[in-house]
Amino acid sequence: MSEKLGLTIKKEDDFSEWYNQLIIKSELIDFSEVSGCYILRPRSYFIWEQVKEFLDKEFKKLNVKNLYFPLFIPEKLLQKEASHVEGFSPEVAWVTEAGNSKLSERLAVRPTSETIMYDSYSKWVRSWKDLPLLYNQWNNVVRWEFKHPTPLIRFREFLWQEGHTCHADKKDADEEVRTILNIYRKVYEEILAVPMLVGMKSEKEKFAGADYTTSVETFLPSYKAVQAATSHHLGQNFAKAFDIKYLDKDGKEKYVYQNSWGCTVRSLGVVVIMHSDDKGLVLPPRVAEDQIVIIPIVFKDDKEKVKKISKEIFKSLKKYRVKLDDREGYSAGFKFNDWELKGIPIRIELGPKDVAKNQAVIVRRDTNKKEVIKIKNIPEKVKELLEDIQKNLFNQAKKFLNSNIVDVRDKKEFKQAIKDKKVVFAPWCGEVGCEEVIKDENEGVKSLNIPFNQKKISEKCFYCDTEAKYKAYFAKSY
Amino acid sequence: MSEKLGLTIKKEDDFSEWYNQLIIKSELIDFSEVSGCYILRPRSYFIWEQVKEFLDKEFKKLNVKNLYFPLFIPEKLLQKEASHVEGFSPEVAWVTEAGNSKLSERLAVRPTSETIMYDSYSKWVRSWKDLPLLYNQWNNVVRWEFKHPTPLIRFREFLWQEGHTCHADKKDADEEVRTILNIYRKVYEEILAVPMLVGMKSEKEKFAGADYTTSVETFLPSYKAVQAATSHHLGQNFAKAFDIKYLDKDGKEKYVYQNSWGCTVRSLGVVVIMHSDDKGLVLPPRVAEDQIVIIPIVFKDDKEKVKKISKEIFKSLKKYRVKLDDREGYSAGFKFNDWELKGIPIRIELGPKDVAKNQAVIVRRDTNKKEVIKIKNIPEKVKELLEDIQKNLFNQAKKFLNSNIVDVRDKKEFKQAIKDKKVVFAPWCGEVGCEEVIKDENEGVKSLNIPFNQKKISEKCFYCDTEAKYKAYFAKSY
Repeated sequence: MSEKLGLTIKKEDDFSEWYNQLIIKSELIDFSEVSGCYILRPRSYFIWEQVKEFLDKEFKKLNVKNLYFPLFIPEKLLQKEASHVEGFSPEVAWVTEAGNSKLSERLAVRPTSETIMYDSYSKWVRSWKDLPLLYNQWNNVVRWEFKHPTPLIRFREFLWQEGHTCHADKKDADEEVRTILNIYRKVYEEILAVPMLVGMKSEKEKFAGADYTTSVETFLPSYKAVQAATSHHLGQNFAKAFDIKYLDKDGKEKYVYQNSWGCTVRSLGVVVIMHSDDKGLVLPPRVAEDQIVIIPIVFKDDKEKVKKISKEIFKSLKKYRVKLDDREGYSAGFKFNDWELKGIPIRIELGPKDVAKNQAVIVRRDTNKKEVIKIKNIPEKVKELLEDIQKNLFNQAKKFLNSNIVDVRDKKEFKQAIKDKKVVFAPWCGEVGCEEVIKDENEGVKSLNIPFNQKKISEKCFYCDTEAKYKAYFAKSY
Repeated sequence: MSEKLGLTIKKEDDFSEWYNQLIIKSELIDFSEVSGCYILRPRSYFIWEQVKEFLDKEFKKLNVKNLYFPLFIPEKLLQKEASHVEGFSPEVAWVTEAGNSKLSERLAVRPTSETIMYDSYSKWVRSWKDLPLLYNQWNNVVRWEFKHPTPLIRFREFLWQEGHTCHADKKDADEEVRTILNIYRKVYEEILAVPMLVGMKSEKEKFAGADYTTSVETFLPSYKAVQAATSHHLGQNFAKAFDIKYLDKDGKEKYVYQNSWGCTVRSLGVVVIMHSDDKGLVLPPRVAEDQIVIIPIVFKDDKEKVKKISKEIFKSLKKYRVKLDDREGYSAGFKFNDWELKGIPIRIELGPKDVAKNQAVIVRRDTNKKEVIKIKNIPEKVKELLEDIQKNLFNQAKKFLNSNIVDVRDKKEFKQAIKDKKVVFAPWCGEVGCEEVIKDENEGVKSLNIPFNQKKISEKCFYCDTEAKYKAYFAKSY
């Protein structure tokens, strides 16, 4: 029974099959009747709620306000900023009919909301007094990918937040880009226990319509890198296309500077892939819907005592997200496997012999270490363990990331490192032309980002041999 | 200046023009480029966040879990329950293209999620151990109304929550319907200060696919009734169409009983229409984004003192949502009008003469009453006023509602009451045929609901003269 329930494939042996089994069997997601669209079941939606709560609080500290724009964008609006429409139109889903009528104009299901929001911003921004204008929305967007989807990582409809701000000064806007990026780094590192590479996207990889894009990225045990969140400075590109001007203190009309920034449910894919193992889901305590499960091991004779003590332990842990698994008709072994599969950070086992000795067995999901502990010490131990598991998962992931970064100097070393499934860190010219060649000659590889505040370097570009400007990360990437 | 800023029409004179001015000028909503779709600006989205928070907490107390299903529903799924598709298909928006490709099957933009959710439920529900299954989602839905839209009341895309639950027993399901309805009553009465008529929808007006529908309704100063939220018992109709069966303890396979229930951003329209006046928005303190505004009235000479004391008052009120309006370049009069328009419940005015006497002027938005008060007593006064305004708004609305309900016994009285723009309470047969005639002969009129737990009556139906079953509410309705 436990075999059918659990994973039948190892993460290292066949990542893709392991992942598909993991997310379905642990009840994180399910497939829907629409290809490339997935159902977020309660266990994964709970993680999203924690991410949302953290981000929303941080945004509100910056005086960012939430609002909501329509799902549909008329085709003519979407086309107003040239590089933007070029970037998005290949993957737009179009509404063309309603009821029994053809619509007179196609409506895009928003792939992102710049164009519909900035149309309104041009009406709302009048004076320097209206700035900065700091708005965010939590919503769903659709990007009709034609590539093979990966659930929670690359798929057709996703939940996210998109912040869209207007500033009088470019300097203010620049600062905000970095402040937000730091919030994204924190939600990943502190909540999801996933370490981030922080930096600037290359000219080729920046957002369609941006002056520049910054990102947090990481490298997953699927041996692929993933862009975790982005914060863009749009300069005055959209302001000019949408005519977003303000009357400044000096009596002159000026275009605003704009940013946009987003973080998506991809964060769920990242946390799951990073930490989970061959037994199933491993979740950091801060995002685990259930943090602790208590499993009474009952036999015919001494049921009542074990049940009673289990309930007492349960009550003593009420301030955590704790579950008492007293389901009948399932063996203790089945329950152990079931909760390992579902990633509960701490398991407390309690049999009649334990009760007799005033003790219980406590097992942590991250290391599988078992410990016998006095019942009265459980609350303190649990507190300590939850913190320790959160830290340990981060440290493990950090070690994994660092051990997979390779410094390279030339094309040969680069090719070898990519063959070895590593993240490359290399001196680079940063040119669009050079990156196009890299992508053409190395399938699936792209630049991740370019760390900020680098020391000046005097090396050659690892790929095209012109002068290098900085060092950048490259890897096979989602 | 204040004339352009404020409303130029009275609520009683031309409701529709008053409402349009109100929601635009108070910056609640804005029009978008898609007809019938509106932008929820921060001031209205804030109200929605309060409604959400209240409901979400209540649902979670009942062990309802949140999850997320895809936006798109394949046409064949939508068609699985016959009366359901008949009810919704006239207003479905269809995605037919993506990128440059035609889709092989049209995808409905969800008008509600029964069909896509229950397709999954049929896989997730296996045993009595899986029941009750209590899920809810917060999302956006689209119903392509072809009637003239009313912003925040009847429009094409709206935010809502939809709860969808499965139960082993009909009795459990019936109980939940009422528990949820009571939560809806509470969010309206306690948070939005809007009294509700609670009851059963008529056979004709029930949800497409339901066994029965319960609702909370109210009557607005536009002299139209509005359905505020609904809680449906679906019986086994969908269970049979989607094959949602469980293995019961007795070893037999049985269909589940289901409920669905929803509350939408229409709640924002209801609170706004109910309380607002000719000066602008009036908001209950519990949902007002800004609860208190402090306006220093400064003259050239004694600026500093007034500013200093204003800041002190501001700090003393930090636990409320308080604003210090020290904008320069605006007169005090302009600011008074501005915040009246935007509905801040309490205004505190502070001039140099007040400061000299250690006092301030405090004005409540609901009654416009002014009071002079010692500065040291402000925090206590504010606490008291916020509670009192919340209560007073509810009581005022309750009085309005009650004074507009008219008991009628026959068609003649009914016609007169409808002509007088009243809510009618009348003995009724409840038959679909009778209601169809009522609707045909009285444009815009329908039954609202039928109060629970009525005493037996022995009267004739007010309209068709057959035997009446109970008394029901009727009115012109949105």
